[in-house]
Amino acid sequence: MIKILIIGAGRSATSLIEYMLTNSLIYDWKITVADVDQQVAEGKIRGHVNGSAVSFDIANEDKRRSIIREHDFVISMLPAFMHGDVARDCVEFGKHMATASYVSDDMKSLHALAKAKGILLLNECGLDPGIDHASGMKIIDEIKDKGGEVISFKSFCGGLVAPESNDNPWGYKFSWNPRNVVLAGQGTAQYLQDGLMKFIPYNRLFTQIDKIEIEPYGKFDAYANRDSISYIDPYGIYSIHTMLRGTLRQEGYCKAWNVFIKLGLTDDTSKITHAGELTYTSLVDSFLPNTKQSVKEKLKHLMKEEWDDEIEHMMEYLELFSDKKIPLKQGSPAQLLQALLEEKWKLQSNDKDLIVMQHQFEYRLPSKTKIQKLNSSLGVTGKDQHHTAMALTVGLPLAITVKNYLTKKFNSTGVVIPIEKEIYTPLLKELEEHNIIFKDKIIT
Amino acid sequence: MIKILIIGAGRSATSLIEYMLTNSLIYDWKITVADVDQQVAEGKIRGHVNGSAVSFDIANEDKRRSIIREHDFVISMLPAFMHGDVARDCVEFGKHMATASYVSDDMKSLHALAKAKGILLLNECGLDPGIDHASGMKIIDEIKDKGGEVISFKSFCGGLVAPESNDNPWGYKFSWNPRNVVLAGQGTAQYLQDGLMKFIPYNRLFTQIDKIEIEPYGKFDAYANRDSISYIDPYGIYSIHTMLRGTLRQEGYCKAWNVFIKLGLTDDTSKITHAGELTYTSLVDSFLPNTKQSVKEKLKHLMKEEWDDEIEHMMEYLELFSDKKIPLKQGSPAQLLQALLEEKWKLQSNDKDLIVMQHQFEYRLPSKTKIQKLNSSLGVTGKDQHHTAMALTVGLPLAITVKNYLTKKFNSTGVVIPIEKEIYTPLLKELEEHNIIFKDKIIT
Repeated sequence: MIKILIIGAGRSATSLIEYMLTNSLIYDWKITVADVDQQVAEGKIRGHVNGSAVSFDIANEDKRRSIIREHDFVISMLPAFMHGDVARDCVEFGKHMATASYVSDDMKSLHALAKAKGILLLNECGLDPGIDHASGMKIIDEIKDKGGEVISFKSFCGGLVAPESNDNPWGYKFSWNPRNVVLAGQGTAQYLQDGLMKFIPYNRLFTQIDKIEIEPYGKFDAYANRDSISYIDPYGIYSIHTMLRGTLRQEGYCKAWNVFIKLGLTDDTSKITHAGELTYTSLVDSFLPNTKQSVKEKLKHLMKEEWDDEIEHMMEYLELFSDKKIPLKQGSPAQLLQALLEEKWKLQSNDKDLIVMQHQFEYRLPSKTKIQKLNSSLGVTGKDQHHTAMALTVGLPLAITVKNYLTKKFNSTGVVIPIEKEIYTPLLKELEEHNIIFKDKIIT
Repeated sequence: MIKILIIGAGRSATSLIEYMLTNSLIYDWKITVADVDQQVAEGKIRGHVNGSAVSFDIANEDKRRSIIREHDFVISMLPAFMHGDVARDCVEFGKHMATASYVSDDMKSLHALAKAKGILLLNECGLDPGIDHASGMKIIDEIKDKGGEVISFKSFCGGLVAPESNDNPWGYKFSWNPRNVVLAGQGTAQYLQDGLMKFIPYNRLFTQIDKIEIEPYGKFDAYANRDSISYIDPYGIYSIHTMLRGTLRQEGYCKAWNVFIKLGLTDDTSKITHAGELTYTSLVDSFLPNTKQSVKEKLKHLMKEEWDDEIEHMMEYLELFSDKKIPLKQGSPAQLLQALLEEKWKLQSNDKDLIVMQHQFEYRLPSKTKIQKLNSSLGVTGKDQHHTAMALTVGLPLAITVKNYLTKKFNSTGVVIPIEKEIYTPLLKELEEHNIIFKDKIIT
């Protein structure tokens, strides 16, 4: 009997835990679900014969180490910055580990030791990063197998609200960490275009966007992710001229979000100590000059030609001009904005979310003079507030790949991401059984 | 014999060390100067009978503690973030301490314990913060003593290059930490205007400026400091409607610096790993779209009506369009920009720097119906590259106030800044002897 520990039982772990419990009956696994809130963990187990729930505090070192010691495989759904301690314990005690998060420097530093001890540290095995790696590498390897060269690879992904549940002009509801959405893009985005390195600073990120179409969902805005360059090496696509990874939002979202950036509402480094006395309208006013105009007029004047009726409608939907009270006593501008958006963009109980992804390839084949173009697209709609497309597409790749490892479909060690054929082939095959299917389209 | 330890012997400590050594002969002090580089410390002592030099590494806890233990009073000229360890040691061993830096949360947390042990933790006793507090409070107290009320207090300060040494169109050379100049203003500036809290985000900070005139030096741009609000309480000016602290630059500097912000060159959170292959022109180009225009044309297009001939001249002075190589292998955009500016804005051996400060007061007196206006201005010109106005105006207030404490002119304990009458009165009087003299002007 293999003992598996899943740490973190929040909404994003629903599909993962269900899959692991179901498969525990076939493969004789014992599953422990650990969460700061033991009741949350029990709610996910629901009395399953192979499941048990424990309370878990990452900061309680003794308890953390003793729980990890009792298991054979640890799946961490904790926030990314918390993986380090768990990973160190795992390597020390000779336990395998898996996460859906980006490989941190902390994680990277454990690679050699994990490899020497025959330990797997699987990372970036969720949606994005995760499914993007697997599905992108499948196409890259197919092109390479034909003797071809990838010239351009743009890859976009977004977690949005399904059209049938979209009752707000932003086309967005939170299916994932709201804080990450509010702070998205801070820093400098780096990508490769026509052989040249390109940078976009935060103050221009939401204005220099791509327009992407994914059938049958329609058109989307895409803003560049912070780092598109560092995957050229692991993907092995040294022939590449253009490499861009981006995040998708409903068309029109980016130009409206740019208002928050220019206004200053996404700054997280300064504290407003008297927020409890303010309304959102007076908060916006505080960022604008003292003139006799209305707050809306002043904001229009600030944005000049970057303002339009659609943006105005989106801002009015958020009650930005109607003296709505701020619910926090103090906080950074970003925290005050987040509190408003969490109310306005809440996924309601019957709401369905939507995951969209699109890879755009340009490549050269030895047999053809013309550059080939291929788009590969994915759309997944959630069931409800709890069984979201986000939880499904983040949790399933992780669960399936852990199962494939435990059933010896591959046997890598050290820090691994799902870009190897023996990992992504059975993963993509099983995802199709769950209706997570890419549709390829040759562009002519 | 009182034993005084001065930690940090860089350029900004020159005047401080000279003053302390000179006064050591009168008051029978022993002065130890500690620096990471013992030769730098020895260069400042120059064989003085009461001086000795030691090498000092803040991270070497045992040595740090044993040196502090041997002294009665510690003056720290270290970067602000390093004061915490020294302050904790001082309070533990019952030693007094003084810095020119802002009171950190670390420092604040030691207040009660220091007070209980009768220890002085003097802070913000340099130029800005320092002379601004002392000279501002003198006028505030005079207004209060007449039964008056301060309505508006704007205070500006800048460390620039003296007109006679100004051979570059930016009117700026480094007399202080270049990194702080490049990163200045990141976050959100907060101030009070006509009774309303106002915020300015970084992306608009250098466009929403004040124009200030200081005779005989001319006109200056002023951008708002991050925090103007928190001094209302220590200054005790609760009647205030407008409170703004700002930084002065030569007229035209701010609109040109805004180009760097919009371009993205002041970001310090992202790393460009292949900088060694780039020129500054190609770096700028990387932040601009791939079109067939020249880099300069593209930049003009980005800035639109925010570009003019003066800015173009300033950018050309920095060789931004002439394929100048980047001297670093990698770094954040801000680090790459800093490397260029350190070359172009270097204070040469015979260059003189200039300190300018201006307080603008509006106040009501019980005897008069009209609002009174008073400007109080300071200008200090340095002697040369080593004896800068910056080192003089940062070091002297600290040295004088330490002397005044040791000679029992005041006897405060705990965390103290120079806003008390018994501290600022003898301080301002002695500064006048060193030709650091404010000129007051009633505005009618």
